[in-house]
Amino acid sequence: MVEVSVLGGVGYAGAIAAQLLYRHPFFKLAHVTARAEAGQRLDDVHPRTRVPLELEIFDVSKHAVDAAVVAYPHGAAAPVVAELRAAGTRVVDLSADFRLRDRAIYDDWYGEHKAPELFGQGVYGLPELTRAQVAGADLVANPGCYPTAALLGLAPLAKAGVIGDVVIDAKSGVSGAGRAPTHATHFISANENVSPYKINGHRHTPEIEQELGVLGATLPITFMPHLLPLDQGELVTAYVTPSAELSEDELVNLYDDSYAREPFVELRTGPVGVIDVRDTNFCRISWVQDPRTGRIIVFSAIDNLWKGAASQAVQNLNLMFDRPETEGLL
Amino acid sequence: MVEVSVLGGVGYAGAIAAQLLYRHPFFKLAHVTARAEAGQRLDDVHPRTRVPLELEIFDVSKHAVDAAVVAYPHGAAAPVVAELRAAGTRVVDLSADFRLRDRAIYDDWYGEHKAPELFGQGVYGLPELTRAQVAGADLVANPGCYPTAALLGLAPLAKAGVIGDVVIDAKSGVSGAGRAPTHATHFISANENVSPYKINGHRHTPEIEQELGVLGATLPITFMPHLLPLDQGELVTAYVTPSAELSEDELVNLYDDSYAREPFVELRTGPVGVIDVRDTNFCRISWVQDPRTGRIIVFSAIDNLWKGAASQAVQNLNLMFDRPETEGLL
Amino acid sequence: MVEVSVLGGVGYAGAIAAQLLYRHPFFKLAHVTARAEAGQRLDDVHPRTRVPLELEIFDVSKHAVDAAVVAYPHGAAAPVVAELRAAGTRVVDLSADFRLRDRAIYDDWYGEHKAPELFGQGVYGLPELTRAQVAGADLVANPGCYPTAALLGLAPLAKAGVIGDVVIDAKSGVSGAGRAPTHATHFISANENVSPYKINGHRHTPEIEQELGVLGATLPITFMPHLLPLDQGELVTAYVTPSAELSEDELVNLYDDSYAREPFVELRTGPVGVIDVRDTNFCRISWVQDPRTGRIIVFSAIDNLWKGAASQAVQNLNLMFDRPETEGLL
Amino acid sequence: MVEVSVLGGVGYAGAIAAQLLYRHPFFKLAHVTARAEAGQRLDDVHPRTRVPLELEIFDVSKHAVDAAVVAYPHGAAAPVVAELRAAGTRVVDLSADFRLRDRAIYDDWYGEHKAPELFGQGVYGLPELTRAQVAGADLVANPGCYPTAALLGLAPLAKAGVIGDVVIDAKSGVSGAGRAPTHATHFISANENVSPYKINGHRHTPEIEQELGVLGATLPITFMPHLLPLDQGELVTAYVTPSAELSEDELVNLYDDSYAREPFVELRTGPVGVIDVRDTNFCRISWVQDPRTGRIIVFSAIDNLWKGAASQAVQNLNLMFDRPETEGLL
Repeated sequence: MVEVSVLGGVGYAGAIAAQLLYRHPFFKLAHVTARAEAGQRLDDVHPRTRVPLELEIFDVSKHAVDAAVVAYPHGAAAPVVAELRAAGTRVVDLSADFRLRDRAIYDDWYGEHKAPELFGQGVYGLPELTRAQVAGADLVANPGCYPTAALLGLAPLAKAGVIGDVVIDAKSGVSGAGRAPTHATHFISANENVSPYKINGHRHTPEIEQELGVLGATLPITFMPHLLPLDQGELVTAYVTPSAELSEDELVNLYDDSYAREPFVELRTGPVGVIDVRDTNFCRISWVQDPRTGRIIVFSAIDNLWKGAASQAVQNLNLMFDRPETEGLL
Repeated sequence: MVEVSVLGGVGYAGAIAAQLLYRHPFFKLAHVTARAEAGQRLDDVHPRTRVPLELEIFDVSKHAVDAAVVAYPHGAAAPVVAELRAAGTRVVDLSADFRLRDRAIYDDWYGEHKAPELFGQGVYGLPELTRAQVAGADLVANPGCYPTAALLGLAPLAKAGVIGDVVIDAKSGVSGAGRAPTHATHFISANENVSPYKINGHRHTPEIEQELGVLGATLPITFMPHLLPLDQGELVTAYVTPSAELSEDELVNLYDDSYAREPFVELRTGPVGVIDVRDTNFCRISWVQDPRTGRIIVFSAIDNLWKGAASQAVQNLNLMFDRPETEGLL
Repeated sequence: MVEVSVLGGVGYAGAIAAQLLYRHPFFKLAHVTARAEAGQRLDDVHPRTRVPLELEIFDVSKHAVDAAVVAYPHGAAAPVVAELRAAGTRVVDLSADFRLRDRAIYDDWYGEHKAPELFGQGVYGLPELTRAQVAGADLVANPGCYPTAALLGLAPLAKAGVIGDVVIDAKSGVSGAGRAPTHATHFISANENVSPYKINGHRHTPEIEQELGVLGATLPITFMPHLLPLDQGELVTAYVTPSAELSEDELVNLYDDSYAREPFVELRTGPVGVIDVRDTNFCRISWVQDPRTGRIIVFSAIDNLWKGAASQAVQNLNLMFDRPETEGLL
Repeated sequence: MVEVSVLGGVGYAGAIAAQLLYRHPFFKLAHVTARAEAGQRLDDVHPRTRVPLELEIFDVSKHAVDAAVVAYPHGAAAPVVAELRAAGTRVVDLSADFRLRDRAIYDDWYGEHKAPELFGQGVYGLPELTRAQVAGADLVANPGCYPTAALLGLAPLAKAGVIGDVVIDAKSGVSGAGRAPTHATHFISANENVSPYKINGHRHTPEIEQELGVLGATLPITFMPHLLPLDQGELVTAYVTPSAELSEDELVNLYDDSYAREPFVELRTGPVGVIDVRDTNFCRISWVQDPRTGRIIVFSAIDNLWKGAASQAVQNLNLMFDRPETEGLL
């Protein structure tokens, strides 16, 4: 039996990670931590989890069990990950602290890294693209929600070396903004509204660029996120100017080659909607060629809290501990 | 006193046009027509209008008064516009039947035109761009909702001749899909969802291309609409690859030159949201330069039923009858 | 292995029943039927089910397997239930056709019964109240959504004989109105709105009265439903004028005696919200005494499509086939 | 010209009061105050107001003009109202500080009153019921949102002396909870949810009881509010046990006598919905008799921020300054 702690279990993603692990056939959810809510039960704070565990204040001597899912904010995650790793705990980190590989870029977007000795040591945990590395990893950097959707949508084109240019227009539900009450997340601000945000640069931009580069597509991208009046769900619409002409059949083959055997990718023709992947680890992808401009327009839909965070963390844990990749996720 | 009929007054846009004209200081709302709902009062079908008129079956001998707003579906509008024009009635047509100037393009996207003798005779009624022609017009083709937002956002760049390429990602509330109950407009389908639609080509694409061409930007565009879970509101995010380098100051000047004196255009810096222009004739525009790619990203927000349809029709009527352009709209 | 057919699998409740049975450890989902959508796969019509079965036109010779969940409209259900029963199939019927025991009341509210020979032979399948009878039943009438919430909330008081009078104010999400597109279920009608409906009498009224009577509380009730802008979820607020004075402790004991060991009833203190039981078979109940009037106010929250329909059907199937009552439902 | 200050102009109700007064034909909006947002323009904080005034820190020497609308929280309002009154300014106060007439009840529900010398001197400003007193008043206590809807719905019955007992089930949009970001008003908490709140007693209960008493119905009531996932709108469903039998005709006459000539009350038959009075000063009322219990069920719908607060304040100002009651409100 493998014991797992979830650190930061009252955030939306942490709570779902705890919920999935509590019902997982292999892992045992040993601890869930939270600071302000310590002493309460997780199912009182988040009834839908139905996890009757009492929230505890993090204490490495107690919570460094076999594995941990760290659901702390960027910056706060790094030092606690370092503590856990020093204690031998294998970690899936939901923050951005171990996703980037260029220290200057990290510091520029997130501020000075708090555990520099570990910087760059995380395996980027997008199993459909990095399955082999995740399998043996001790520290997995769980991808950002937008990068998950964007990279899965673009990977077949990136690997084929045909992305000449790309604009990524992304749309997310309000849970992506986190659980802290703010004017932006107030019902009255978000409801009946749609607006772009972080229009001068969103931190997921360098992450997408880095991983596109790993796939062979080294180019600057345009990425623009928008906030929508719904709870969970993220749709990426990626406008690709191909660097070479591609027939319909060639595109079909590229996507089939990448995803026909993937358990969590659903290739579709026609529009995809985020409701169709709600509360799941699935990513739905479709694409269309625009005959008037030659562009390839790729649609990619996920649940930002599941495939974009918590369930993908469990998918990574499954791989790290040599379990069936879909265990506990279907 | 100038009498106006609204034809098709139970559609969302027709009802708002009636509501605005009923309270207009100059125009007199003389008739509102509807077929299935004839005999009912408009304020029973659409309480928010608070227009206590009885809906009538259209009869040109009765309803061809000084002016008419025609809120019929595409195809159905043309013959009735022809009838009205033959009777001397000045018309603002909300359909697409008189927007396009290339007959082949119209027939290709909408089917054979039903009043070919009038084809191409409508003045495109986007006052911020075509004010002078609207002023003397007898037949004004009210722009589509997406073209209104897209063209207002892009016009300063188009007129300056600096649009090298453009991708238009558009997001609309459900009222844009019309009042007929369908699976797509069912609450359960639209709520908590976002998806693209008409991914193989939306009819507003040639309309936007045509009017960009009038402004000097002749190029094929990529246009992709998305359906959002909200009532009214439309956000266009336009990604422009400039054909020439533009400084921040030059961009500021382009937009100021176009819009600083426009009563219904609100230039902003930072994100714009559709809730801020809800139930108004305003269009909010902001833009940002993406330093990593050089792209100019333009945001343009309107209420699809107001500036995108009904209130713009009244703005056009004001111009046609030599009234202050903002009369009845502030 | 016990094979189950779901008849009417494209309605919201039928689709969820199919989804639950497809993943059930004991039952095998053998067939899902639908008329207009026959030939399509259920997961194309309802992606969230992820049931890859092809929808078939109902044919009793093929679909009368061990058991069936019938998700037909009232009136349409009775004859097909009769066919299934004649073939020896055990049935859970989601319609009202076998819930009532007084034929005159049925005919008055629903029209003439279509399988009179079977009328009154259904066991009312609210396991928390009728578990013993469901266990051996061949025909179970699955309760209506409102009766489920109302009866669970009121049963402890009804059994104690202390309901002097009761007003039931009920609030439901839009899925309760069914999948057919209508003006009432159009996004624009339901969103940002709340209104009562069926104000001259809702069919669930006699059903609640009948079952309260079974519990010992024979009295006319006031029941008023309201439509809310959300997908799934039903909240019943029941205002009980007690016929005898009850102390706080006595009330605590009444509810504990009824529900402390129930796997699907969650007794709470404080407000309950429908989101907390979304997509589950749970019913959350709390109550408060109003010191100024002596009233007992009971809150009862369910998911109308789950505990109010589909998952309760599976709970009933579990009992009918002597399986653990929670199997496939946690 | 009569100058008006709005104090507390960044709350939802204060902002709408400013918006209405800025466009009012008679009043001049002289000042809008706010503490944290001082120096910003109101239309930057609340774009929909389109009031380009700069928010100022309250200073009685500057802002005690002819009249003031005070939109402060309970408790904070009383001392500033006292200052304004001392300076001769006529006041409409949106808080509860001057609504109650029994000091013990006020202190019990709100804490010790902060301007006891003025306690009880406010005229209760529900024009349909207290028009004559408002006309000459210097200090008007604007009713709470729930009392406005409940009292308008019940007044004809209360005046006729036929209310034997009443249960008031009330449902409100999220704006009623105010603009401060909290867990309860977070989009993720409120969306797709409905729950009761303040189940141990809501402060509007004694206010409703007091004013029912003024109308002749002295009785304890049961009042229970619920939070709904929508922006603005409040529906009261009042279940009245009549103390005498009333025919349909008698009820029609009672309601007609009270409201047939009221400009802001819309008597309807059939269901009423809050969307129908959104952004207006109207109250829609309908009722139905429950033949099985004899109860009269009254439905009353308002916009909680308009008729429930800001527009009713303007209606009161119109009366105080001898203007047409509907001026600036249609």
